[in-house]
Amino acid sequence: MSEILERIWEYRQISRVELVELTGLTSGTITNLTHDLIQLGILRENEAISGNVGRRRVMLGFDPRFYRIIGLDIGRTSFEIIVMDLNGTILQSIEREMNGVQGPEAYFQVITPTLTTVKQEIEAAGEKILGLGVGIPGPIHYESGSLLAPPNFPGWKGYPLKQMLEQQFDLVTLIEDDARTSAMAERWYGLGKSVQNLVSITMGTGIGGGVVTNGKIVRGTNGLCGQVGHMTIVLDGKMCDCGNRGCWETVGSIPGILSRWSQGSTLMELQTAIRQGEPEALRCIDETLAYLEAALVNVQNLYDPELILLGGRLFPLLAEHLDQLKPRLQSRLYAFAKDRLRIEPATFGTSQSAVGAAALMLGFLLSEPVRLLSLQDS
Amino acid sequence: MSEILERIWEYRQISRVELVELTGLTSGTITNLTHDLIQLGILRENEAISGNVGRRRVMLGFDPRFYRIIGLDIGRTSFEIIVMDLNGTILQSIEREMNGVQGPEAYFQVITPTLTTVKQEIEAAGEKILGLGVGIPGPIHYESGSLLAPPNFPGWKGYPLKQMLEQQFDLVTLIEDDARTSAMAERWYGLGKSVQNLVSITMGTGIGGGVVTNGKIVRGTNGLCGQVGHMTIVLDGKMCDCGNRGCWETVGSIPGILSRWSQGSTLMELQTAIRQGEPEALRCIDETLAYLEAALVNVQNLYDPELILLGGRLFPLLAEHLDQLKPRLQSRLYAFAKDRLRIEPATFGTSQSAVGAAALMLGFLLSEPVRLLSLQDS
Repeated sequence: MSEILERIWEYRQISRVELVELTGLTSGTITNLTHDLIQLGILRENEAISGNVGRRRVMLGFDPRFYRIIGLDIGRTSFEIIVMDLNGTILQSIEREMNGVQGPEAYFQVITPTLTTVKQEIEAAGEKILGLGVGIPGPIHYESGSLLAPPNFPGWKGYPLKQMLEQQFDLVTLIEDDARTSAMAERWYGLGKSVQNLVSITMGTGIGGGVVTNGKIVRGTNGLCGQVGHMTIVLDGKMCDCGNRGCWETVGSIPGILSRWSQGSTLMELQTAIRQGEPEALRCIDETLAYLEAALVNVQNLYDPELILLGGRLFPLLAEHLDQLKPRLQSRLYAFAKDRLRIEPATFGTSQSAVGAAALMLGFLLSEPVRLLSLQDS
Repeated sequence: MSEILERIWEYRQISRVELVELTGLTSGTITNLTHDLIQLGILRENEAISGNVGRRRVMLGFDPRFYRIIGLDIGRTSFEIIVMDLNGTILQSIEREMNGVQGPEAYFQVITPTLTTVKQEIEAAGEKILGLGVGIPGPIHYESGSLLAPPNFPGWKGYPLKQMLEQQFDLVTLIEDDARTSAMAERWYGLGKSVQNLVSITMGTGIGGGVVTNGKIVRGTNGLCGQVGHMTIVLDGKMCDCGNRGCWETVGSIPGILSRWSQGSTLMELQTAIRQGEPEALRCIDETLAYLEAALVNVQNLYDPELILLGGRLFPLLAEHLDQLKPRLQSRLYAFAKDRLRIEPATFGTSQSAVGAAALMLGFLLSEPVRLLSLQDS
C-alpha cells in the first residue's frame, strides 16, 4: 500500500493502469487497495481529459477534503502552528513570538490554548486530524520521545514532549529535531520532490542540518547525523555548548557573527552597516562568508548532495552575498562535480520547520499507511 | 531470495523453520528457494545437534566448496589479489610492491599475468569464479566504470577499468573507490556485521573514508560521499589536489605529516625519533593528533556512526597514541553520546581494501542473487 501512495504522491494524479505499470502489482490488487483508500478519505477519483481524442480517464489523487495534518514548530524565540490538507496545501498558519519566555511550562501556557482551538475548529468542521508533527531543537531521545540536551534552550532538557502532547491532545504525535523537519519539508513539499540526496541547513541562534540520503532522512546512531553547526571550523577556537571547540556555530550563527561587531547588537543594524560600507561590518561579513564557504565545502565533500538548502533567520543577510560566494565555493570543489551542486534558499522561509513538522506525518502516511490508519481509532 | 541469503549470512547457520519465522515467507517458498540455491552451489545443508535431548537439525549455511570470489586492490604503491570462498575465508593472498610503477599499462603488465594464473588455478580445480571485485583510488564514474580524476595517481585519469577487466578476464566485475571497499570489508566480514552505521577511514598517501548508513554503503551524487580527507581542517591552509584549501589530507596524510619534520623522510624514521623524544618529531606528532582529533569530532557530529574504523599505512604510527587521543576526543563530543562511540583499528590491516573488493561481490550476491547468478552463464 505504501508503494501505491508514494507513486500517487510523486505523480499527483495518476490512473490505475499507470499504477499497475509502475508498481508491478496486479490490477485487481490496485483496484482493491485504492477502493479502501478512497473509502477512508485518503484518496479520491478525479476525471481528466487526456490525449487528442479527448478520452475521459479516471485519475487518482490525494483527497484534500477530509484529513488534516497539524505541524507545530517550537523554536527558541517563537512557535508556529500550521494546518495542511493531504495535498500539502497550507490551510492555516499561526505564529507567536516567544522572546523571553523560558521552559516548557511557560511555552505551553501559550501553545495549549492555541492548539486546542485549532483542533476544535477542525473537528467542528467534520474533518479529521491524521496526526500532529512537531519540530523542536534537538537532539532528541527517540525511544522515549523526550528532549536530550538542546543547547541554548534552557528548561527543556529531559522534557517528555511526545508523551505530554499525546496525553493532552489525544492525537498521533511524532517529534523530530527541527533541522531534520526542515529537510523533510523540502523532501516532501519542496525542491526535494525530484532530488534524492539533499542537505538542509538552518542558520539562526544555532546552526542545524538535516540530511536526506536516497530519499530518506538520516538520524544516525544518537540522532546527531547532520549536526553541521558542530563541525570544527576554527582549530582551537571558542568553546561551544556542545563540548567541542571552534564549531561553525560559534562563529557562523547570529550570536557568533554579532560577537565580532562592536557597533551594534542586532542583525538588522549589521545589515545596514554593511550596506553603508562601515569597515568593521564589512570585515565581519567577509569572515562570515569565509566560514560559510569552508563549511559548505565540507558539506559537499562529506555528504555529496545534489542540493544544499539554506534557511533560517540569518539567511536574508547572507542571501545578498550568495552570488559572490558561489564561484568561490565552486573553485574549491572537485572539478568534475562542481557544476552539479545546487545551492538554493529553503522553499518555505521562516515556516520551513512547521511545514516540515507536517511533512513528518505525511512521510508516516506514505511509508506505513496501515499502521497510521489503525492508530486513528485506537 | 535476497532476504533469505541475508538472514543466512547474518546467522551463519540457520534452520528452515527459523527462516520461516524471520522472513515471514511460507515454508513452501523457503523449501523451494533453498533447494535451488543448494543445487547452484550457493548454500549447503549441515547437520547440527541442538538442545538438551540431542535432536538432530538440518542447518543451512553458505557452501564454501564451489564458488570463489576474487578481490583485487589496486593501490598507489602496491596491488593485492585475494581469493575467498562464500563463507569469507581467505584462501589465497598475493601482494606486489609497485613503487615507481606509473599508469595502468605498466600496472597491468604485472597484474594481468598474476590474475590470469589465479583464475586458471581456480578453474583447473573445478571451482567457479562468482566475480571480480576491484578497489582503486576514486572518485569513480560509476555509469561507465572508469576513473575520474584520482589525486596523486598519475596516468589513471579517465581509464575505463571495468570494461578493460571484463574484456580481458571474462568475469562479472564491480569496481569501487578503495575507501568504500574498506568500509565494505568491515560491513560484511568485520566489526560491521553487528553495526548498521559506521565510517571507515584509511590514512596513507591520501586520506579516504567509506560511509555505511543503515547497513548500506553510501556513494552520494557524484561518488564523493565520505571524502573525509577533503574536509577543511586548517582555514586558509595549503592548496590541495582536490581544489580545496587546508584539507585534512594536506596536514594529516603521510606526506602532510612528513612535510612538518626536517630530520628525516620516512614514517619509520619519524616513529623512531618520536620514541627517542626528538623535540621536532614530538611537536609533529602532537599536531598530527590535534588534526586527527578535530577530524574525528567532525566525523562524529556529521555522520553520527556507532563505530569509526581507522586503517591504512599511517595507522601503526597513530595506534600508539590512540589511548591518549580517545579521552580528549570524548571530552569534545555531546555528553550523552560520547560513551557510545567506538573507535577501532580496521579488521584486516593492509588487506582491508582487497578483502572489501571481494565483499563488493558478496554484497551483490546477497542483494541481487537472481541477477548475479543469471550473469554467470551469459
